[in-house]
Amino acid sequence: MSFVSSVHLNDEKDAIILLDQTLLPNEEVFLKIENKEDLWEAVKKLRVRGAPAIGIAAAYGAYIGIRKLQVDDFSIFYDEFKRVKEYLATSRPTAVNLFWALNRMEKVLLLNKDKSIDELKELLLKESEEIRKEDEEVCKSIGEYSLELIESAEGVLTHCNAGGIATAKYGTALAPLYLAEERGKRFKVYIDETRPLLQGSRLTSWEVSQLSHEGILICDNMAATVMKEGKVQAVLVGCDRVAANGDAANKIGTLGVAILAKNYSIPFYVHAPLSTIDIETESGRDIVIEERGEEEIKKIRDVDLAPSNINTYNPAFDVTDNELITAIITEKGVVYPPFKENIKKLFEN
Amino acid sequence: MSFVSSVHLNDEKDAIILLDQTLLPNEEVFLKIENKEDLWEAVKKLRVRGAPAIGIAAAYGAYIGIRKLQVDDFSIFYDEFKRVKEYLATSRPTAVNLFWALNRMEKVLLLNKDKSIDELKELLLKESEEIRKEDEEVCKSIGEYSLELIESAEGVLTHCNAGGIATAKYGTALAPLYLAEERGKRFKVYIDETRPLLQGSRLTSWEVSQLSHEGILICDNMAATVMKEGKVQAVLVGCDRVAANGDAANKIGTLGVAILAKNYSIPFYVHAPLSTIDIETESGRDIVIEERGEEEIKKIRDVDLAPSNINTYNPAFDVTDNELITAIITEKGVVYPPFKENIKKLFEN
Repeated sequence: MSFVSSVHLNDEKDAIILLDQTLLPNEEVFLKIENKEDLWEAVKKLRVRGAPAIGIAAAYGAYIGIRKLQVDDFSIFYDEFKRVKEYLATSRPTAVNLFWALNRMEKVLLLNKDKSIDELKELLLKESEEIRKEDEEVCKSIGEYSLELIESAEGVLTHCNAGGIATAKYGTALAPLYLAEERGKRFKVYIDETRPLLQGSRLTSWEVSQLSHEGILICDNMAATVMKEGKVQAVLVGCDRVAANGDAANKIGTLGVAILAKNYSIPFYVHAPLSTIDIETESGRDIVIEERGEEEIKKIRDVDLAPSNINTYNPAFDVTDNELITAIITEKGVVYPPFKENIKKLFEN
Repeated sequence: MSFVSSVHLNDEKDAIILLDQTLLPNEEVFLKIENKEDLWEAVKKLRVRGAPAIGIAAAYGAYIGIRKLQVDDFSIFYDEFKRVKEYLATSRPTAVNLFWALNRMEKVLLLNKDKSIDELKELLLKESEEIRKEDEEVCKSIGEYSLELIESAEGVLTHCNAGGIATAKYGTALAPLYLAEERGKRFKVYIDETRPLLQGSRLTSWEVSQLSHEGILICDNMAATVMKEGKVQAVLVGCDRVAANGDAANKIGTLGVAILAKNYSIPFYVHAPLSTIDIETESGRDIVIEERGEEEIKKIRDVDLAPSNINTYNPAFDVTDNELITAIITEKGVVYPPFKENIKKLFEN
């Protein structure tokens, strides 16, 4: 099995090696990023995507952006760090993990003002590697719990890309596939193409094709038939945000798949690191859904698919109601209904 | 309102005027077809599509193919007609309406052997026009029944293209929209793009954009959200074949939309000319679904959407189970459950 790490430091720890996801599935290009400007561009242009991967890239970017600075004074070093941090934060202002990772890096400095600049640089490097490593552990743990649930399945279906390239390693919804692969278990993996941006066709298909599972790409509207024909015994999806009552926001189309799965009594599993569970948000009704432009639906690259004068409706996400979800799989275990109660417990322990 | 007639004879009755549907939505080109070879090519290359439209085109083609033949003897005329018929039948061997229309034309000759060749030519012309006119009446009648059911709706959702360009006029699932337009009633029409071949984006969007209704194009996987948000009060679809128990085969994705509609208690209406109801087929289990090639999913024109080594599953149709269907709308009226019983009655009257 080949494990693709979409973002990591090189052995010399002086550059970020970053898989350019915009070129997938046709080209596998790893960028060598040696300064903050190139990292900014890579985040901005979505060369790195997936909340955890963006966070990791930002942490590395903060370190790479400051590592060559030759000063002795903490306040000068800290001021420059803040400039790097603020600059990187403008690369994708809606990415929560970007800010989370940069703030975590800043905290290292604030807790170690008395250390030498060389020591601080070392601590920043360590923290950025720690962020990557923690994400890998979270994903692996989610994968273990998930694999246990789907062990007897022959076929699984997934939507969008909650894969290894969106995280440090393993992914969330795809994590059980990586672990199964290590243990010699093979699935048939039905992959929704995930219109309009085709993350399923482009990214999940590419990831699954690196493994020994059989990947089978379908159009989103074929999921009902795949289920009706008994081809899948579980649905595996990631999520962007889970509310306190278990309602889960994820890529557009997830809600529809959940309704189909319920209709055919197929378990529907949401893979959610604790960091995506927002107990301050009461329910899905409180989650605002981003609407995107018409060109995503009306064009593919330069090909016009529709008349220029037709309107579109292009919500980027949808909210899957908690009653459609069989279980939410976190790094701390599997959460079953009643979700409100059991999610609360998760944060109490 | 502009009514587009996708296939008709010119005023001189010496050529077929045919909308080239392969060029939609970007170009509106009407071909002038003056011989059987050009009609054969147009059917073969899907320039004309939709079962009724293909039947009409074939009938016209049989007339156009024989009209210039100068002979006095019936048997010579009939032999040549059969050659034309057999030739046209090879243009799309799976299109049931093609054979139905050609056989109907042949019957005219067999019932009028005693007439002069000029009279026979006149009768063939009349029969071909009759086939077109009957289809228009069937569609209009379906539209009337359908419009009555959806009169109070603000928004409707449709999948694929069961529109005017697939028939003589009005279409089936889109017929109520044409009639509403004539009467000043306006709908918001949510149009599933209908992957992989995008009949919704390319054809339905184009048709609706010719009318005063507001067309809103969505990706197939957005239908659930549109329903959840209360934007549509009815789903309108056509069909390829209805079994004796009401199970309906239609373009891939229809089944999924029906399950979503049931989940949100939105009426789901199948528009079916009697000619598509096959009482010899007991249930949907007896309908064989065509599987098509991977390139439809993996490419759009020359653009690669997926890795070359990923497998696909590409069923062209699916079967919507009768319990998901609110009513089947025919030219003889609206059929409600129990479908098996009520469809039988339809053919007894």
